[in-house]
Amino acid sequence: MSFTTILGIMVGLGLFIGSIFISTDNYLVFLSLSSALMVVGGTLAATFIAYEARYVLLALRLIFKIFRAPQMGRSQLTGEVGRVVKWGYLLQKKGINALEQEAERVGKDEPFLGWAMEVVITGYDGEETAEMLHNAIDNAFSRNLVPVAILKSMAAAAPAFGMIGTLVGLVIMLDKMADDPTSLGAGLAIALITTLYGIVAARFFFLPAASKIQQREEIMRFRNYLIAEGLIMLADRKGPRAIQDRMNSFLDPAIHFNIDKSSK
Amino acid sequence: MSFTTILGIMVGLGLFIGSIFISTDNYLVFLSLSSALMVVGGTLAATFIAYEARYVLLALRLIFKIFRAPQMGRSQLTGEVGRVVKWGYLLQKKGINALEQEAERVGKDEPFLGWAMEVVITGYDGEETAEMLHNAIDNAFSRNLVPVAILKSMAAAAPAFGMIGTLVGLVIMLDKMADDPTSLGAGLAIALITTLYGIVAARFFFLPAASKIQQREEIMRFRNYLIAEGLIMLADRKGPRAIQDRMNSFLDPAIHFNIDKSSK
Amino acid sequence: MSFTTILGIMVGLGLFIGSIFISTDNYLVFLSLSSALMVVGGTLAATFIAYEARYVLLALRLIFKIFRAPQMGRSQLTGEVGRVVKWGYLLQKKGINALEQEAERVGKDEPFLGWAMEVVITGYDGEETAEMLHNAIDNAFSRNLVPVAILKSMAAAAPAFGMIGTLVGLVIMLDKMADDPTSLGAGLAIALITTLYGIVAARFFFLPAASKIQQREEIMRFRNYLIAEGLIMLADRKGPRAIQDRMNSFLDPAIHFNIDKSSK
Amino acid sequence: MSFTTILGIMVGLGLFIGSIFISTDNYLVFLSLSSALMVVGGTLAATFIAYEARYVLLALRLIFKIFRAPQMGRSQLTGEVGRVVKWGYLLQKKGINALEQEAERVGKDEPFLGWAMEVVITGYDGEETAEMLHNAIDNAFSRNLVPVAILKSMAAAAPAFGMIGTLVGLVIMLDKMADDPTSLGAGLAIALITTLYGIVAARFFFLPAASKIQQREEIMRFRNYLIAEGLIMLADRKGPRAIQDRMNSFLDPAIHFNIDKSSK
Amino acid sequence: MSFTTILGIMVGLGLFIGSIFISTDNYLVFLSLSSALMVVGGTLAATFIAYEARYVLLALRLIFKIFRAPQMGRSQLTGEVGRVVKWGYLLQKKGINALEQEAERVGKDEPFLGWAMEVVITGYDGEETAEMLHNAIDNAFSRNLVPVAILKSMAAAAPAFGMIGTLVGLVIMLDKMADDPTSLGAGLAIALITTLYGIVAARFFFLPAASKIQQREEIMRFRNYLIAEGLIMLADRKGPRAIQDRMNSFLDPAIHFNIDKSSK
Repeated sequence: MSFTTILGIMVGLGLFIGSIFISTDNYLVFLSLSSALMVVGGTLAATFIAYEARYVLLALRLIFKIFRAPQMGRSQLTGEVGRVVKWGYLLQKKGINALEQEAERVGKDEPFLGWAMEVVITGYDGEETAEMLHNAIDNAFSRNLVPVAILKSMAAAAPAFGMIGTLVGLVIMLDKMADDPTSLGAGLAIALITTLYGIVAARFFFLPAASKIQQREEIMRFRNYLIAEGLIMLADRKGPRAIQDRMNSFLDPAIHFNIDKSSK
Repeated sequence: MSFTTILGIMVGLGLFIGSIFISTDNYLVFLSLSSALMVVGGTLAATFIAYEARYVLLALRLIFKIFRAPQMGRSQLTGEVGRVVKWGYLLQKKGINALEQEAERVGKDEPFLGWAMEVVITGYDGEETAEMLHNAIDNAFSRNLVPVAILKSMAAAAPAFGMIGTLVGLVIMLDKMADDPTSLGAGLAIALITTLYGIVAARFFFLPAASKIQQREEIMRFRNYLIAEGLIMLADRKGPRAIQDRMNSFLDPAIHFNIDKSSK
Repeated sequence: MSFTTILGIMVGLGLFIGSIFISTDNYLVFLSLSSALMVVGGTLAATFIAYEARYVLLALRLIFKIFRAPQMGRSQLTGEVGRVVKWGYLLQKKGINALEQEAERVGKDEPFLGWAMEVVITGYDGEETAEMLHNAIDNAFSRNLVPVAILKSMAAAAPAFGMIGTLVGLVIMLDKMADDPTSLGAGLAIALITTLYGIVAARFFFLPAASKIQQREEIMRFRNYLIAEGLIMLADRKGPRAIQDRMNSFLDPAIHFNIDKSSK
Repeated sequence: MSFTTILGIMVGLGLFIGSIFISTDNYLVFLSLSSALMVVGGTLAATFIAYEARYVLLALRLIFKIFRAPQMGRSQLTGEVGRVVKWGYLLQKKGINALEQEAERVGKDEPFLGWAMEVVITGYDGEETAEMLHNAIDNAFSRNLVPVAILKSMAAAAPAFGMIGTLVGLVIMLDKMADDPTSLGAGLAIALITTLYGIVAARFFFLPAASKIQQREEIMRFRNYLIAEGLIMLADRKGPRAIQDRMNSFLDPAIHFNIDKSSK
Repeated sequence: MSFTTILGIMVGLGLFIGSIFISTDNYLVFLSLSSALMVVGGTLAATFIAYEARYVLLALRLIFKIFRAPQMGRSQLTGEVGRVVKWGYLLQKKGINALEQEAERVGKDEPFLGWAMEVVITGYDGEETAEMLHNAIDNAFSRNLVPVAILKSMAAAAPAFGMIGTLVGLVIMLDKMADDPTSLGAGLAIALITTLYGIVAARFFFLPAASKIQQREEIMRFRNYLIAEGLIMLADRKGPRAIQDRMNSFLDPAIHFNIDKSSK
């Protein structure tokens, strides 16, 4: 996780919480067990009805993983082009067996990549390779977006249950009002806390987490398509320079890979 | 239905209802016959105007079926690949008649699969088979999503009729206010109950049910496309290993089917 | 119109109106001429500015037609397949002249079908026939969805004009408040009636009508595509059994047409 | 502009304004210079930041043009088919030079049509003609939809600035409340006027204007595609009857062009 | 930045701010440090959680750049057609070497254009050139839209944090109400300021900035596709007149490039 991200979050949260401290010194009024239970309970129950438990638990775990550094970034893409270009030279110079050993080595850390190289080695042509690789990438992407969909549905559910809690609080408060009209203010304050919790949960947790996971999956899909493009050309036995030109067309000119400038 | 799902729903609902018990002991204030009638009646009437009765009744029945275990899950997909690969060997070794007998046996439990195998047996080539099978899968998927659309429209209608009920309650209450201003609180409480019912109905019943049914239909469509892919290759008389490679490209590498590791 | 639909609407509306009768006996408070005029007038004016008058009037007429039985349903689709299969036999056995007489007979009741058969008879091949027929079906569908778009825009406009009416009512009421604070409740009640009218109009009339018309048009398009598929194969002089197989792939296996089980 | 459109708008606006006259006789309360300035000023400023000035001014001018009669309607489409069919006969009988003279004559009033005919005359084949003509039509359509996008963004901005104005009014009013609580009603009335102005501006001006301009552009695009279809066939030297059949497939059977029933 | 844009913004903002000055002379009530901190802090924190810091900082910098004149406008497009047409003549008359020198010269200011010309010079055919160029253009467009997505998410977050701030303010105020009911008005005023800040930030900064950046990127993509179209034809060694006709089909007839009317 980069320093700027931590700094950004610290400053942002600092400003937010600081502004509450400026406004009041009765901080306890913002803590309400029953409000928290209602928002958390309602959101969880609705999510467990709507989705298979396996995926809900996965989505909840992913919230805590978003603070880790991303698996893949802009700077690594150039290297990915370089890898495939080198495989191209390997195939030209040492033949298919050398590539098979390389595939075995790569497949240990990255199962998808190992499998994709196996497809090329098996001898499928470019078109067949393209269909299988794109199939695999698109289906993996769809599977990985299920937790994003769950987090988005939780982001929509939390404020709704916050509002349900506020309505419950209002009904209780208004029902008692005839007996004790002076309690109106405090009752209304408690009722509003639930809505506050719901919106805060959606805006600080569920929505940003969904957004970050989705971006990372999109970058992984982009990188997988990039490598697939190279492997498809390898399956058609295109030369390393053609592979380099085609793969570079996916990248910002500033990070184009150039075999002449890098050690083989 | 899995244990974690039940547990998730129990805990969620428990927290939600528990938090109401913490806040008040006059639970009866949350029960209102006229509010329930207005939300249920309005939602039903609008839905029966908007959709053919046949499909509305089907959608209402489906709400209760979502607690059953799903027909098809991640773990069964490997087996589906295995089935088609074995049909490939059957066709290679014992010819079209053996496949016809298999189709008859399969068709008893799964009419779609039986029909799909018949298409291959009739002798259509890969392209014609693909068009027919994809036609059948897409049209079945569209038909099965009609109840989802109805549930989503009910999820949108319920809070709207909740709000209509609250407006009706407010008008009645404000109209009487001049005579008896002290009844304002209780009147407002009753008016708000209708909105509460509408949102709760949408968030605990209609939306999660629509979401779960849609996912299951999407998984069924995915599985049907997977099997169709294999049958299309069978129609083109591709070998069992090619069928296995192509069908595996749809799955997570962790659950790839491998004929060498399974008994034929 | 089916019995269940009528029953559903009666029960729904009965519950809704019944719940108002439970809550008050001063029903007259819900009638307000100026509120009705504002919602109806505003919605009409905005719609006549936004769409050509010809189509607005058509949309208004269609609201009343949604209670009629639908032109085309699930049960008739099997028969449609049968018709095209029989034209296939007619063409095989008696030649193009017999089909031309059939086209003339059919075209009297169903101009689109007559025209589509003419295209086949003129001698266009399958691809040309497909382009023309799909053109005609898609354009007819687009034209028929214009009233649906108008009803949806009225469904969005009605609550907006209800809210405009409520704001107008509030301004009038608040302006007078200094003189007569006791009229506040009654004034607010009247102001809220306009919002109530707007939402009720949208939820009981415009939205359900738009939804039902759209479904019926989608079913007609589905049926037209089904028949087009058969006619395209006829244009390519495919046999009746191939036509039957292909057309059946659009239908639920339970209602597949089978020439062997029906009298020719 | 047709009589029914004028009538529709008059009746609608009459009902709307009439209902205000029924409710109050202090009409002046609905006039507020500062509210109007805030809605107009805020909407204009936001729009000028968001879009290039050239297009904003164009969009504002277009609002006043929507009351003119449309350039192209259902009834003229038959004639458009007839024109292209006659060009087909012209090309068959008198050759390319006659068509070139015709193109020059047509191009004076309709530059697009003149240019499109030039493309055919230059000698591009059907496929090249199709690409160029569809390019030109789609790009013209995109350009003409920019003002629609601006009007829609103004329709979203106006109520938002109305709400901003109401918040400003509320803050001013609440700030003064301690000094003079009796002014609350009047202050609130003035604050609400801004929201009223914002919604009325969106619902009576921006949204209907955007909707009407979009429809007209869609009809123009439809007509251009219709003519392009004919010209593409002309580029492939198809006969006038084939052109007529293909172009008719875009139209409602009731307005099909028939060369035999019209004078050549 | 054009004169009309400045004028439009000045007039709009002038009307808006003027209308506040008309309404009150206690301007200080609209300044609240804690409200500003809460909106700014909350929006920043949520954005830094949701997106990589690198892109958030880029998006914030872009807000200030929208007042600069656009890189590319309608008037320059004709010139772009002219450039490619001249390259066509250069290639015909002086061969590939002259084009290579031109590419080097162009590539200094416009890396994308230099790279695109290199692709043509390398000898890829039209189809390969098209795939690479469209790849590069689409991927650049996707990358450049990331800040737009961030600004749109900030435009959605700011009013949400405004509302959160208002809820915080309401809870504090209602909690104190029992002690000092007369402070209700002032407390409510302060609470509402936060919502006001949130909406103003979204409507005057984030949304218009997102909208303007998106348009400019769309124009750049359009221009890049236009040039790519020409280069693809160059790769297929089409003549300059064919290039001119094809590229003109993208433009409004009024700004078509005509080689005969311009100096070569």
